[in-house]
Amino acid sequence: MATINKNYDKLAAGYLFPEIAKRTNAFLQKNPGTEVMRLGIGNTTEPLTHTIIRGLQIGVEKLASVDTYSGYGDEQGDKRLRKALADRYEKMGVKLEPEEIFVSDGAKPDSANIQSIFSEDSVVAVQDPAYPVYVDSNVIAGRTKSFVNGKYEGLVYMPCTADKGFFPDLPSERVDLIYLCSPNNPTGAVATKEQLKMFIDYARLTQAVIIFDAAYSAYISDPTLPKSIFEVEGAKECAIEINSFSKDAGFTGVRLGWTVVPKTILTAGEDASKLNSLWNRRQTTMFNGASNIVQEGGLASLTEGGRRECQSLVSYYMENARTIKEGLEKLGLKVYGGTNAPYIWMKTPNGTKSWEFFDKLLNEAHVVCTPGSGFGPSGEGYVRFSAFGHRENVEKAVKSMQDNLRL
Amino acid sequence: MATINKNYDKLAAGYLFPEIAKRTNAFLQKNPGTEVMRLGIGNTTEPLTHTIIRGLQIGVEKLASVDTYSGYGDEQGDKRLRKALADRYEKMGVKLEPEEIFVSDGAKPDSANIQSIFSEDSVVAVQDPAYPVYVDSNVIAGRTKSFVNGKYEGLVYMPCTADKGFFPDLPSERVDLIYLCSPNNPTGAVATKEQLKMFIDYARLTQAVIIFDAAYSAYISDPTLPKSIFEVEGAKECAIEINSFSKDAGFTGVRLGWTVVPKTILTAGEDASKLNSLWNRRQTTMFNGASNIVQEGGLASLTEGGRRECQSLVSYYMENARTIKEGLEKLGLKVYGGTNAPYIWMKTPNGTKSWEFFDKLLNEAHVVCTPGSGFGPSGEGYVRFSAFGHRENVEKAVKSMQDNLRL
Repeated sequence: MATINKNYDKLAAGYLFPEIAKRTNAFLQKNPGTEVMRLGIGNTTEPLTHTIIRGLQIGVEKLASVDTYSGYGDEQGDKRLRKALADRYEKMGVKLEPEEIFVSDGAKPDSANIQSIFSEDSVVAVQDPAYPVYVDSNVIAGRTKSFVNGKYEGLVYMPCTADKGFFPDLPSERVDLIYLCSPNNPTGAVATKEQLKMFIDYARLTQAVIIFDAAYSAYISDPTLPKSIFEVEGAKECAIEINSFSKDAGFTGVRLGWTVVPKTILTAGEDASKLNSLWNRRQTTMFNGASNIVQEGGLASLTEGGRRECQSLVSYYMENARTIKEGLEKLGLKVYGGTNAPYIWMKTPNGTKSWEFFDKLLNEAHVVCTPGSGFGPSGEGYVRFSAFGHRENVEKAVKSMQDNLRL
Repeated sequence: MATINKNYDKLAAGYLFPEIAKRTNAFLQKNPGTEVMRLGIGNTTEPLTHTIIRGLQIGVEKLASVDTYSGYGDEQGDKRLRKALADRYEKMGVKLEPEEIFVSDGAKPDSANIQSIFSEDSVVAVQDPAYPVYVDSNVIAGRTKSFVNGKYEGLVYMPCTADKGFFPDLPSERVDLIYLCSPNNPTGAVATKEQLKMFIDYARLTQAVIIFDAAYSAYISDPTLPKSIFEVEGAKECAIEINSFSKDAGFTGVRLGWTVVPKTILTAGEDASKLNSLWNRRQTTMFNGASNIVQEGGLASLTEGGRRECQSLVSYYMENARTIKEGLEKLGLKVYGGTNAPYIWMKTPNGTKSWEFFDKLLNEAHVVCTPGSGFGPSGEGYVRFSAFGHRENVEKAVKSMQDNLRL
């Protein structure tokens, strides 16, 4: 008599993006022929660069010949790619062994699955607002109770508010797992070394583990800001870092990411130093490696030429960010982020609710944004704009907001 | 204070294939220069075919141009691919909606993750011997107790023995989830429609769910044997089917598979018909779709030309299977499978233990096989040979066994 995992019933009904799609489609049905401009989703739009395309082509060509064909690879990733990633960290002054780096099919699955190596009764803390996957994966795993007033009982929300630069205070109760994301999705805030140090010291003191999502680290141009949590002393004793090829190499649909689980992390109890071997066991049992073709593309993106090209892709999107940020500021709106991050976090005017502003923006300016409340209760009263898009569309959207939005 | 998921401690120590690699390396160190011939692992060796290579190249080319670039796709897979798979089922007389088919990065992750949509107290039944992922994923999820005498307490083992054609009897106790694999890994046995009907009737009567692994279905040439469980009446009310592009298109390293979760499955309780939407929620939350490049390759493999080429790949490996089977039979050994499956299941002579025969075969004939005991207690006294390999290596291995094995 099969029964379902009841934790799924606890998930708050609508996932954010389907609801956005639904409202956008309803608008288009009422207003046929209207051009809707999308600044909502963090999805790359620009083609892959020359070096990466060549890498992917080589990946395909290798499979066409009996001498270079390869079947199952290591679940942990191609050794050359793990080494190239370790070298990349080394340039940041971070020493990691390739065996501490696990290549995957992206940051989303890793963000969702990492919780599974921890005990079911772990108390989880998330930034509020946060990327919904941290929350939902822990709901499904049974670490929360009911969803009441926009919050899951049993989950610790760490409010990220404007007055504190959208970085949270340390949790006031005991927590076991702490999710941090910098550059932040959705607020665009970037943690300083000092801010991370505060959490690292806390984690080491309380034997908590930090799960650090650095998927947007390529968007940091300020050299004083850390691109990896491992740039901060003590992190290798308490932090796991998740990263991606999606947003700098343009691999959102190509699928490639990685997770660093240092061998030196210490958890509580007699199994204190097992996290690296546990994630290894998880990946070898439940995963079968990222695509060999895709890994060749990833390798190409880490060559000198590849890095340079990725940097120009990042610059392209950051020019979009500047356009949106300045456009909104000219309208007298209060905006955050968008300088070392591809997201612009905007305070809605006159205390408008997030979804109310979403509807207003869609109806008046035909522009789609993402309601901040979809990322957690502290996101209420904000909306997120994404810098991913074609330049001409971004410029058109900004102009339409300036011309048509009635503030 | 982070603590680990203690279920990992229950996992029986060595995974099968690392132990094989260890013993093989030890042999090579003692006998430098010896050529070892591997018939152990089910890993494809022949290059991808022309049509598929072209499909993959198109996938890469699309990403090089702004007009055809795509970012995030549907987590459930490219609509064209879901439709092509539905069409493929239709040719077998099976009607499925594309929305019942979920494209993934392979059968292994789906086999491992599918258990997560069921309640934690589900009683799980597996064929014995079985592909280790079914067992290990349920151990990690906490559905078993200790590992005692080669068995996990709390797991229901369904012995598959020679006298019953390696297909199990119905379980004698209540079970909730039943894993079946046909063509079977490791025994090479293929279930008949009548055998599957018996399990389908049982599942419907007891509201159990069958998880049917059809990853080797392309190897069935006998038209009376079912390639999909959905060819058997009633299966759409009780069965999930997992399949793969690995073994017919050669995608072991390329990574592509799919899982069918019919909307018509009925489980117990008030959530009776939710499995399809639950798996959809699981995939949209924890997964981000298979690679867009790889999906283009999958689509190409489903064209008429692609199917024909895959069929010739399958024929190539099946000729290997015939060579191994006949070679072992000439030695007077008792073998099973290898006619509608790429695996040959051999009874070790004179009651030799599986690992003992493994060592003997390696030392005397320099051939690597897979010890049957690694797949479960009923695998003791058997070894598995795999038909995946280059023809010349397979022939050389068979000759070496005939010349050097002392029986």
